Amino acid sequence: MDYQDEKKARTQHVNAVIRDYMPTDAEFQKTLLEAMRYSIDAGGKRLRPIMLECTCQMYHGTGTIAGPFMAAIEMIHTSSLIHDDLPALDNDAMRRGRKTTHKVYGEAMAILAGDALMNYAYETACKAFSMAKPDQAASVAEALRVLSTKSGIYGMLGGQSCDVECEGRGLTEGQVEFINRYKTSALIEASLMIGGILAGAPEEDIRMLEEVGNKTGLAFQIMDDILDVTGSEAVLGKPVGSDVRNRKTTFVSLFGVSAAKARVELLSAQAMETFDHLSAKHDFLRCMLEELARRNR
Amino acid sequence: MDYQDEKKARTQHVNAVIRDYMPTDAEFQKTLLEAMRYSIDAGGKRLRPIMLECTCQMYHGTGTIAGPFMAAIEMIHTSSLIHDDLPALDNDAMRRGRKTTHKVYGEAMAILAGDALMNYAYETACKAFSMAKPDQAASVAEALRVLSTKSGIYGMLGGQSCDVECEGRGLTEGQVEFINRYKTSALIEASLMIGGILAGAPEEDIRMLEEVGNKTGLAFQIMDDILDVTGSEAVLGKPVGSDVRNRKTTFVSLFGVSAAKARVELLSAQAMETFDHLSAKHDFLRCMLEELARRNR
Repeated sequence: MDYQDEKKARTQHVNAVIRDYMPTDAEFQKTLLEAMRYSIDAGGKRLRPIMLECTCQMYHGTGTIAGPFMAAIEMIHTSSLIHDDLPALDNDAMRRGRKTTHKVYGEAMAILAGDALMNYAYETACKAFSMAKPDQAASVAEALRVLSTKSGIYGMLGGQSCDVECEGRGLTEGQVEFINRYKTSALIEASLMIGGILAGAPEEDIRMLEEVGNKTGLAFQIMDDILDVTGSEAVLGKPVGSDVRNRKTTFVSLFGVSAAKARVELLSAQAMETFDHLSAKHDFLRCMLEELARRNR
Repeated sequence: MDYQDEKKARTQHVNAVIRDYMPTDAEFQKTLLEAMRYSIDAGGKRLRPIMLECTCQMYHGTGTIAGPFMAAIEMIHTSSLIHDDLPALDNDAMRRGRKTTHKVYGEAMAILAGDALMNYAYETACKAFSMAKPDQAASVAEALRVLSTKSGIYGMLGGQSCDVECEGRGLTEGQVEFINRYKTSALIEASLMIGGILAGAPEEDIRMLEEVGNKTGLAFQIMDDILDVTGSEAVLGKPVGSDVRNRKTTFVSLFGVSAAKARVELLSAQAMETFDHLSAKHDFLRCMLEELARRNR
């Protein structure tokens, strides 16, 4: 199968896994579940669950206990998008070519839907305990630890808070890197690490997977900032120019587009070098990480 | 020790436990941590962690692995208060006698602080795995499952969403009970159940603890609605009359104050009866549950 076909097949498979783990039973909380589903169904590339599953397969993990974590990491990612789009934060009306959650369900329900998706991510990840063989329980616990750490104040949410606090102010390169590392890289690191952990990969590999995720995420975010300057709404499915409009300091605003592109190249090359030192191989995952870091050049 | 002294000592102990588990290290996410601490330090009665620890002790649990869960349940509770107070939801400026989080840190930071407290609750609860003896790991996993379920769409958040959706509309008794059961009882149920689970209490007792929590929570919520009509801001530390102002249907608005008081009595009596059927005893916890259900009569 060529890369594009495999990506399509994997995306469909991941969509089915996520759908299986989404809640359906509702009494008087129907609208909440609808708002959660609306946001999850908006699509997106499902990068994190695909990466998680690939890494698990790379170390010959069975994949069964990966399912709940694949759904969970997409729920946490989506939760952060819902809250990020709120009027008090980025105030975005469109995302992935359609109305954002608060534009459809109102602010109160969007706040709760974000909360509920984050909480349901942990509820879902916990299901892996009942699916795990006795010798896998410790790996599930470790995966849960990584998931929560990388999503929290020393991960995604820490990055978001710095991003919010620094908006409209001049930032140093260090602060921009902090935001990118936590806001974007953290969940990519978590995806790769959790896949490895659940499959029983060597500890040294987990450390290297973290580094691969970190570099890939940084490259991805800088590319995102580049596209916000050079891209078009039609291609991206979201408004461009929002960084300038919000006076956000990015790697691009600090050093310009061509320096940013060179940084993307460097980070991507470093990520690939570390990836090639892992004790296992996975051609599709390698292509995907490379595409991710360098998309739309 | 008499009841009031014991309650004071237990509250101080719980405050120390929560403080120990709150995050301190920060680089560029200092304000987020400050907002989280501001909300946690606002105090409150720490009912949930105290109940959790008492139930654990009631079944001769060591209490060590209860610590992370005591902190976690208070973090989740506090997270819900921060988001509940937001302008898009209850729009409350005061809570526990001081400014609400968004009034001090702004809406964006309050949204993120609520998210961060919820996520950190799971990060904290996960710490129990590394503290657990080998034969306790399954109990920690089960406690995590209960914590996430009771906090989510089939618990606290499900209740909040129904509450938000139904605001200003006439509700049936069934809908009011749904809101109270999920919004208020769920975390009280979780506290009692988790304490029992971590101590290895019999399954039948866990089921009864859930019922005790359910009835106590319902009584507590109806009492809260009564006090919103009959109480004063000086005593409660928060504005009264908000239910009428927001045209909220409560048990009180449906059936009046004296029927509501009778319901509180009935629920409280039922909770105590079930409590007395448990295979273990705990005098302080019994007093506390009774006080909770019938406070300020």
